Amino acid sequence: MSGKLKMGMVGGGEGSFIGAVHRMAANLDGEISLVCGAFSSSAEKSKRSGEALYLEPGRIYGSYEEMITTEKTLPEEERMDFVSIVTPNHMHFGPAKMALENGFHVICDKPVAFSLEEAKALKELVDRTGLVFALTHNYTGYPMVKEARAMIKEGKLGKIRKVVAEYPQGWLSTKLEDTDSKQAGWRTDPSRSGIAGCMGDIGTHAENLAEYITGLKMKALSADLTIFVDGRLLDDDGSVLIRFDNGAKGILFASQIAAGEENELKIRVYGEKGGLEWLQSDPNTLTLKWLDQPRQVLRTGGNYTYYSEAARKASRLPSGHPEGYLEAFANIYLNFANAVRAHRNNQTLAEVDRDFPAIEDGLRGMMFIETVVASSKQNSRWLEFGTV
Amino acid sequence: MSGKLKMGMVGGGEGSFIGAVHRMAANLDGEISLVCGAFSSSAEKSKRSGEALYLEPGRIYGSYEEMITTEKTLPEEERMDFVSIVTPNHMHFGPAKMALENGFHVICDKPVAFSLEEAKALKELVDRTGLVFALTHNYTGYPMVKEARAMIKEGKLGKIRKVVAEYPQGWLSTKLEDTDSKQAGWRTDPSRSGIAGCMGDIGTHAENLAEYITGLKMKALSADLTIFVDGRLLDDDGSVLIRFDNGAKGILFASQIAAGEENELKIRVYGEKGGLEWLQSDPNTLTLKWLDQPRQVLRTGGNYTYYSEAARKASRLPSGHPEGYLEAFANIYLNFANAVRAHRNNQTLAEVDRDFPAIEDGLRGMMFIETVVASSKQNSRWLEFGTV
Amino acid sequence: MSGKLKMGMVGGGEGSFIGAVHRMAANLDGEISLVCGAFSSSAEKSKRSGEALYLEPGRIYGSYEEMITTEKTLPEEERMDFVSIVTPNHMHFGPAKMALENGFHVICDKPVAFSLEEAKALKELVDRTGLVFALTHNYTGYPMVKEARAMIKEGKLGKIRKVVAEYPQGWLSTKLEDTDSKQAGWRTDPSRSGIAGCMGDIGTHAENLAEYITGLKMKALSADLTIFVDGRLLDDDGSVLIRFDNGAKGILFASQIAAGEENELKIRVYGEKGGLEWLQSDPNTLTLKWLDQPRQVLRTGGNYTYYSEAARKASRLPSGHPEGYLEAFANIYLNFANAVRAHRNNQTLAEVDRDFPAIEDGLRGMMFIETVVASSKQNSRWLEFGTV
Amino acid sequence: MSGKLKMGMVGGGEGSFIGAVHRMAANLDGEISLVCGAFSSSAEKSKRSGEALYLEPGRIYGSYEEMITTEKTLPEEERMDFVSIVTPNHMHFGPAKMALENGFHVICDKPVAFSLEEAKALKELVDRTGLVFALTHNYTGYPMVKEARAMIKEGKLGKIRKVVAEYPQGWLSTKLEDTDSKQAGWRTDPSRSGIAGCMGDIGTHAENLAEYITGLKMKALSADLTIFVDGRLLDDDGSVLIRFDNGAKGILFASQIAAGEENELKIRVYGEKGGLEWLQSDPNTLTLKWLDQPRQVLRTGGNYTYYSEAARKASRLPSGHPEGYLEAFANIYLNFANAVRAHRNNQTLAEVDRDFPAIEDGLRGMMFIETVVASSKQNSRWLEFGTV
Repeated sequence: MSGKLKMGMVGGGEGSFIGAVHRMAANLDGEISLVCGAFSSSAEKSKRSGEALYLEPGRIYGSYEEMITTEKTLPEEERMDFVSIVTPNHMHFGPAKMALENGFHVICDKPVAFSLEEAKALKELVDRTGLVFALTHNYTGYPMVKEARAMIKEGKLGKIRKVVAEYPQGWLSTKLEDTDSKQAGWRTDPSRSGIAGCMGDIGTHAENLAEYITGLKMKALSADLTIFVDGRLLDDDGSVLIRFDNGAKGILFASQIAAGEENELKIRVYGEKGGLEWLQSDPNTLTLKWLDQPRQVLRTGGNYTYYSEAARKASRLPSGHPEGYLEAFANIYLNFANAVRAHRNNQTLAEVDRDFPAIEDGLRGMMFIETVVASSKQNSRWLEFGTV
Repeated sequence: MSGKLKMGMVGGGEGSFIGAVHRMAANLDGEISLVCGAFSSSAEKSKRSGEALYLEPGRIYGSYEEMITTEKTLPEEERMDFVSIVTPNHMHFGPAKMALENGFHVICDKPVAFSLEEAKALKELVDRTGLVFALTHNYTGYPMVKEARAMIKEGKLGKIRKVVAEYPQGWLSTKLEDTDSKQAGWRTDPSRSGIAGCMGDIGTHAENLAEYITGLKMKALSADLTIFVDGRLLDDDGSVLIRFDNGAKGILFASQIAAGEENELKIRVYGEKGGLEWLQSDPNTLTLKWLDQPRQVLRTGGNYTYYSEAARKASRLPSGHPEGYLEAFANIYLNFANAVRAHRNNQTLAEVDRDFPAIEDGLRGMMFIETVVASSKQNSRWLEFGTV
Repeated sequence: MSGKLKMGMVGGGEGSFIGAVHRMAANLDGEISLVCGAFSSSAEKSKRSGEALYLEPGRIYGSYEEMITTEKTLPEEERMDFVSIVTPNHMHFGPAKMALENGFHVICDKPVAFSLEEAKALKELVDRTGLVFALTHNYTGYPMVKEARAMIKEGKLGKIRKVVAEYPQGWLSTKLEDTDSKQAGWRTDPSRSGIAGCMGDIGTHAENLAEYITGLKMKALSADLTIFVDGRLLDDDGSVLIRFDNGAKGILFASQIAAGEENELKIRVYGEKGGLEWLQSDPNTLTLKWLDQPRQVLRTGGNYTYYSEAARKASRLPSGHPEGYLEAFANIYLNFANAVRAHRNNQTLAEVDRDFPAIEDGLRGMMFIETVVASSKQNSRWLEFGTV
Repeated sequence: MSGKLKMGMVGGGEGSFIGAVHRMAANLDGEISLVCGAFSSSAEKSKRSGEALYLEPGRIYGSYEEMITTEKTLPEEERMDFVSIVTPNHMHFGPAKMALENGFHVICDKPVAFSLEEAKALKELVDRTGLVFALTHNYTGYPMVKEARAMIKEGKLGKIRKVVAEYPQGWLSTKLEDTDSKQAGWRTDPSRSGIAGCMGDIGTHAENLAEYITGLKMKALSADLTIFVDGRLLDDDGSVLIRFDNGAKGILFASQIAAGEENELKIRVYGEKGGLEWLQSDPNTLTLKWLDQPRQVLRTGGNYTYYSEAARKASRLPSGHPEGYLEAFANIYLNFANAVRAHRNNQTLAEVDRDFPAIEDGLRGMMFIETVVASSKQNSRWLEFGTV
């Protein structure tokens, strides 16, 4: 059947940051329509949120269980096609599991779950059902990130030797969780965030980005996590040394007490022939550094013939028209939508069209969290990735 | 009545750049729904375009006349609320006029018309009907542009002395109109573009930005326009000296033969107490320069209490999450939608919510075009703005 | 005879900015030794200044006349080889003329003289004596400026179409000449500075840079000069449209009321094949912009084989070791010293070693000043360069 | 006695990079005169080098021993005041020791010696003789580095929490030591460089800069050093986790295989109230990041009243006139010269005038080298700084 794909949302009610982001990302390209939602654990709040989104009253639910159960009974041309999960970490597993078990595709915020155990269970379920599962590690949605990955894959930098991935933020420099900040509240609360704070929230983005761009896998980690703000229960800063599977070395650091930094996710990769650099706050630029010729500055949307197909597909505008965070996020929704349509039509997608973070990325994210926390507890002992 | 606002589109079929931009901008915030369109003068092409956009077959029209006539007969809860016009310049006036005359609000791409005469007629019609008319000078939609305007209005830079507005592009460095480039084709064709090429296409953006940010009006202009590419019929480069109404001096230049430049719209304003700088390719940054203290770098979404309400409303994301061209464009659609709802409800909007370019901006844009073309023909003679 | 070249200085006593610059530039490479000076019109001040510079008491003079007369009588191995003139504009001609007439080479600050008439007289004298005359338009001393010139000369950008040269400063935004600022005092005083203020002081730098880099000559100018600060007698801001001899168009602006700007001399040049950009506050970078490939970033000292000989010779350090204003200045002194030695040995220098601004540059600078002042007085009428 | 200070140089003959740097730095301010040298272990090469520097033939020596012995016999007004040592690491100790033992002050390139043992012996000697000893960790000579130090000392950033110091270079990405590169040759040779390669050559700069700016001391280190280029004998890359004495955490990395990087020494410091960032390739800028107000950009030479005295003294030019590597280097020579004069006159210098790296810095540099090498050998075990 034709028409836009129909989305049901779990979480993302009033006061949510990431829920609105998911909705704008889903809206942008006109391929997806929000048709229903369980926006809050408070039925009243969910109702208010759904009405503000112009939903039909009957499609605003008080819980995800109600939503999934009810939608399942609707005729195919009406019922939602997939569930978007935008709740805090501890509330990912429940709706994801139930959606998959009831035949709904899932797109879920990161990290994929509260624990590695949950992630493994989800992986098993995705494999078993064959449904589409996307994880919104949105930074891999940027065109220049895709171009970086393609260049390295084609060997343009030669064998990779060194990777530096960093994600400094400053917004938790004070004890913001003692104010009414909803965002700070759950992220610093072990019962909702999991065993890691900063490392789970943004360290996993850096980890995912490093593996996505380089195509390498982290093999061993040595970490030093810190809680700088008095009374906080989870790490708000961490530094990690990395050994990759090909012999490359790495540094990853993430911080939420890097006072004055906004969201400076940055990656540098150095190979035998050259290096590259990408910075999220200037996302349409990819700097190439060469041993024997001047630097080159690639820009989103430039019409250079050597641009990768993945980068071209991820860009909506001619060069010089800045695309940002929402467009990168929308690229995940767009490719996810492609995959859902392909699933429906029993088609196989080209790799470039399946280019979104999936359950495997979620699993590695949880392994990363568990490994760095364990290494830090053992005074930065080197630990094999994912074996703790 | 509630629900999303309903949009009908004129132009923007297959191969169009700006049509897709308008649709994404309209989609982003979930306030507007595309319900019908006349996407091409070819009925078949219009049909194909509309189907790809998941429109109902019956709402895909072969001409704007058909669209307006038919939609007018639909019940209010079905029929379009406003028309979005995304055709080349020579095709703005017809649909705008007919839409207004039939009670539909209009949002129109820039420049507002083919000639100053048409612009005056539209102004008269907008004034008479009281309908909402927005012009997508999208660069004024950026949060940092709004902040710049607010700062100057509050006198933070003191009396303004000097303004430098520039818009260099390089994409017409060769005779691209001889290829199958639809974009180059109409822009360099006097029968579709009007009396100016570069000055109409991008010079008007610089003009609009300069007046928007400074709150000043251009009083006299001295221009030197050039056609650099052999065989081209309209200016592809121009330099303009400006005298503003308060005594400030200005320079405006726009070029489409600035080889290697993407879309480097930039403005610098200097007052008695300080200066500011904004660059479209780094749109989330506003640099403040002071006589007696270090530079300051404002960033979109920063939570500084002195941010203007207009800038805050124009930003969807926390600091560090880059917003781009589409978000700025969407701000015009969002404020336009507010105005349409207010019109429907007989409400008066606060100034901050009527913050979008309107018919007056369109009129001044046409005056700018006519003045610079006339001045250049008279060997850069100083001419009063809009009096030619 | 061997040994360092011996320099005598006119001006540059206590409180001087540019005198110290000249001395550091002359010192840097160990090729020149300051042996004597007439540092001030006050003999006592000259003495104090000379002593602070460790000069022999007998070589500290009370006037340039005394210096030239006395030094001429010294044996060749003792007496100064050349005179460095670092006085305000109205005091260039006297010492330059007397030095040349007495067989001393001259290196002089810019603009070369107080009036075009003086400049012509000096040109005649330099031509007649065959002595070496250098003018410290120091910005052409930067390696990346030389590289830009070489690239354009070799046709890498194709035929040049557009040039934008700008020099905004903010330090005269208030009436600084009413304080004890020696620098502001003479620059805003027509009796010491000449007929132009901002245009003479820094506009000439932009003019010289534009002609040096492009190899083009300005053919006609249209200028709009302004005095923004109440009670000031000379222009503190100016905008100029330019027509070059090859048909290229240009914009030049200079301002001393661009509040918050330091010394942002910048040039952009666009040709048929590409463009380039250089900015004095980031002097070791030259950005190349291409029609069909990504931007390239050249850096001082990079070991790329296509670097011009002129750029290589102008750099003392490996890449990554920033060279600045003084090193650029020193390049003029170094090439001037080469020319003086060659003169002594009756050798002919290769062009790359005569690469310093000379009397012809001084003459064109004075023509520029006279033309822009005249054009501005005639309401920006286009005037042929140098014909006023 | 008056006059310029007289310098004798050890090393720095033909083909040397750093020897020429020291001479230019010593020349710049006109306070120091090169009077003699032993420029090479080859007497002939030393002679050729000295002649090119316009030295008197009798003051060009075949060995440092000859130089020190001979100069000691000269009358005070002729003989050198101090020795500048610019040889490879293994040749620092001999001349430094002999110079000190014979009453000559010493300025020496870094790292101070071949081993920690040698460094300790020198420290003992400096303490015993009371002579002036400077170490050219030149990056601390930049005005903005001094300003950063002053701001942190005054508590403007609050208690320091995190420090990230990095020094990526790419020039040893290939086995350059197999070519005729003199620079690569000794740096990769354990018999001339010592136990570390990259970490000794540039890691120590990052270490020195971090301690200088923050005023903190490194307390424990965990390092992972790597040799990436086949056949190389010393580390060409290293990553270090740091624990500082006040509880702050740090990351330091240095690399000579970061392909395409020039000399990107950079430091970021985050405290409870704000952060700062400085980058050697843009040395005149210091970026301040605040929790609750916009970023500020300090610039060398800006006349802001809160500038520290140390920064002001380290700047020769008004704002907007870029000062570079040589000027920073010259600041060490200038302050060293002040100290030598003060020693001669039995004066005590204000702290701001003794602001140059000294023997203590040299000692800590050697401790750093020994600690990181030992930690890396023990699989990144945390080791107390300097206790190996």
